[in-house]
Amino acid sequence: MRTGPSQEEVRRQNLGALLRYVHIHGPTSRAELTSELGLNRSTIGALTADLAGAGLVTEAAPRETGRAGRPSLVVRPESERVYAYAFSIEVDQLRAARVGLGGEVLDHRADDRPAGLPAAEAVPLLAEFVKDLQQAVPDTAVYVGGGVSVSRMMRRADGKAGLSGGTDSAAVAEPLGAVLNAELGAERPLVMGNAADVAALAEHARGAAVGCDNVIYLHRDAGVDAGIIVGGRRLTGYAGQGGQVGHMVVLPGGRPCSCGSRGCWETEIGDRALLNAAGRDGDGGRGAALAVVDAASRGDASAQAAVRQVGDWLGFGLANLINIFDPEMVIFGGTLRDVYLAAAAQVRSRLNSMALTAAREHVRLRTPQLGEDAALIGAAELAFERLLADPLSS
Amino acid sequence: MRTGPSQEEVRRQNLGALLRYVHIHGPTSRAELTSELGLNRSTIGALTADLAGAGLVTEAAPRETGRAGRPSLVVRPESERVYAYAFSIEVDQLRAARVGLGGEVLDHRADDRPAGLPAAEAVPLLAEFVKDLQQAVPDTAVYVGGGVSVSRMMRRADGKAGLSGGTDSAAVAEPLGAVLNAELGAERPLVMGNAADVAALAEHARGAAVGCDNVIYLHRDAGVDAGIIVGGRRLTGYAGQGGQVGHMVVLPGGRPCSCGSRGCWETEIGDRALLNAAGRDGDGGRGAALAVVDAASRGDASAQAAVRQVGDWLGFGLANLINIFDPEMVIFGGTLRDVYLAAAAQVRSRLNSMALTAAREHVRLRTPQLGEDAALIGAAELAFERLLADPLSS
Repeated sequence: MRTGPSQEEVRRQNLGALLRYVHIHGPTSRAELTSELGLNRSTIGALTADLAGAGLVTEAAPRETGRAGRPSLVVRPESERVYAYAFSIEVDQLRAARVGLGGEVLDHRADDRPAGLPAAEAVPLLAEFVKDLQQAVPDTAVYVGGGVSVSRMMRRADGKAGLSGGTDSAAVAEPLGAVLNAELGAERPLVMGNAADVAALAEHARGAAVGCDNVIYLHRDAGVDAGIIVGGRRLTGYAGQGGQVGHMVVLPGGRPCSCGSRGCWETEIGDRALLNAAGRDGDGGRGAALAVVDAASRGDASAQAAVRQVGDWLGFGLANLINIFDPEMVIFGGTLRDVYLAAAAQVRSRLNSMALTAAREHVRLRTPQLGEDAALIGAAELAFERLLADPLSS
Repeated sequence: MRTGPSQEEVRRQNLGALLRYVHIHGPTSRAELTSELGLNRSTIGALTADLAGAGLVTEAAPRETGRAGRPSLVVRPESERVYAYAFSIEVDQLRAARVGLGGEVLDHRADDRPAGLPAAEAVPLLAEFVKDLQQAVPDTAVYVGGGVSVSRMMRRADGKAGLSGGTDSAAVAEPLGAVLNAELGAERPLVMGNAADVAALAEHARGAAVGCDNVIYLHRDAGVDAGIIVGGRRLTGYAGQGGQVGHMVVLPGGRPCSCGSRGCWETEIGDRALLNAAGRDGDGGRGAALAVVDAASRGDASAQAAVRQVGDWLGFGLANLINIFDPEMVIFGGTLRDVYLAAAAQVRSRLNSMALTAAREHVRLRTPQLGEDAALIGAAELAFERLLADPLSS
């Protein structure tokens, strides 16, 4: 049961709306904020003063506008001063970044993730990154929280990738949160998200899907996963397990999957499927998969056939998702980006024969705009969400 | 970009929250409203007075409580006086009802839908229902709007069911809205929803899924569809076409489907599939399908085999949806209710082998609580949503 907001909540929502606007759109004049937020000038002035008092924004006269009259002051997020830590625990690498309010990556560190290393055991390595990054932080800077992107997949000691078991997120949250709080001397929440959701969030906030409220971001990180945005909000599911589209069965009795089932979509569009179809060693991973796409572009017939076959299955499963979700946009992430670009005709052909016209005709197929940074930018967004919900609470 | 609410919006939200509470929960004491809505006593008193002044609720002393002290006044929705019209355009029947605030069906009419009749041509028949129903309406009653549930399927002139083309909803909205406004002398919005969404909404508000925010309602009305609730809100998709799970392909190269594709889930769990599997005429429809389930319960071996086969495919596709959505509850509607009850072991077995443990272990499988009334109750909810969003606007 939703209850109505109090006076204090109204102010908090307005503060959050203003701060979110400059966080997403960058420096903005008071005049534009007045019209974009639907609040009057005196309210904008009071809110800005509160946010400036808390050190979250600054105000300054704009550069020469060339127009007569007193120019509207420009409100800027304190991007160098207010920051979050963002972490990305991927199948084969570990990354940490300091990200400023406004979404800029200010500094970052990365290293390989040793095969077989559980996510929880990555915490000491991430803690070293933080200690290192922290040395360059100005004394006046304000830490607002941390966000973590965790892959649902891990590379096992035998070099093969598999589901990490679904408990990594919880196993990381507590020790990494404790490290951050001890290192930074602040009790700040650490927000966890799976890698697909985080990448979708980043593309929705700052990338290809800005302004789209129904988005499927197909994610590849050893396995196939999706970050799904429904009506403007992330689909998380009841237990945070939503979006595991790679384990939609597309071929009954098909190849065995790492999840224990058979014929999962992942077994037909994963890197291993592409490599097998091209007659290559299936354990080569991302680089080997991209080499197949590259060989296809140079005319290698068996590589071309493999790319077409995987593209066909990519369109097959995607048609199902389009019928289920009626999205406005689909984004192909990871190696699926390259497969899609090389086999767009196969993908389109499957959509034309399998997806319902009314759901298909408006869908836009896109590749990511943010590249490798998406995980860090999205993880930082998880942390900034808390600040934006209640800017003056801390 | 979300902006903060004004004073007036705060009041509107509080009025909506109070009215929604008694609309869903029925007569409620002021004391309970105070604690449930998190507002103080004087605010509850003022809001109740406003709603009573608008004729939406009444207040009265409760029946004998047996406790000492002055009893808290009880706030009741004006269920006999404030009403919506609800319509249901199904494959084989047309229904209309007058539904009171609080969700009670006050009066209703129904008739067969002639085979081949497009939804738009049902409007004159529904208009007759309204004229008839209207004769019993007290002079003091207040009409607040109408809601329509439209099946995405229609029964063609040859007796077979197929997709109606996706434009029925728009083709009905305008003429039916005009009829209602002319008949009732009021400019009220007519809200359209597809039958699966509407049934899900009804079960979520007043049926099996009360309190569950992640729900898949599998709907059967000649075809297979789903009403899906994600994070407490209906999944509609970009163009209102979301939820068409019946056209998820589960068997590549399988049987031809009415949508033009092959091997859709609908071709394996539809009434026709059940009838074919039992060696019976596939065009028998709902009654014939239920007869197969009945025969299976009485020991008919071929009917038992057919039910097991369809139950197996029901679990197969559902496992995919559980991996994608991570729902808290799945509800089996229409003839899928009977198939599920007769083949729960097959469904469970498929979920155990195909659905990911972390998404499967908490999901509750249920049958609908509201029966035939779900379409009318859900359609009325569509209309009441407008009233609850802004109770005093009209």
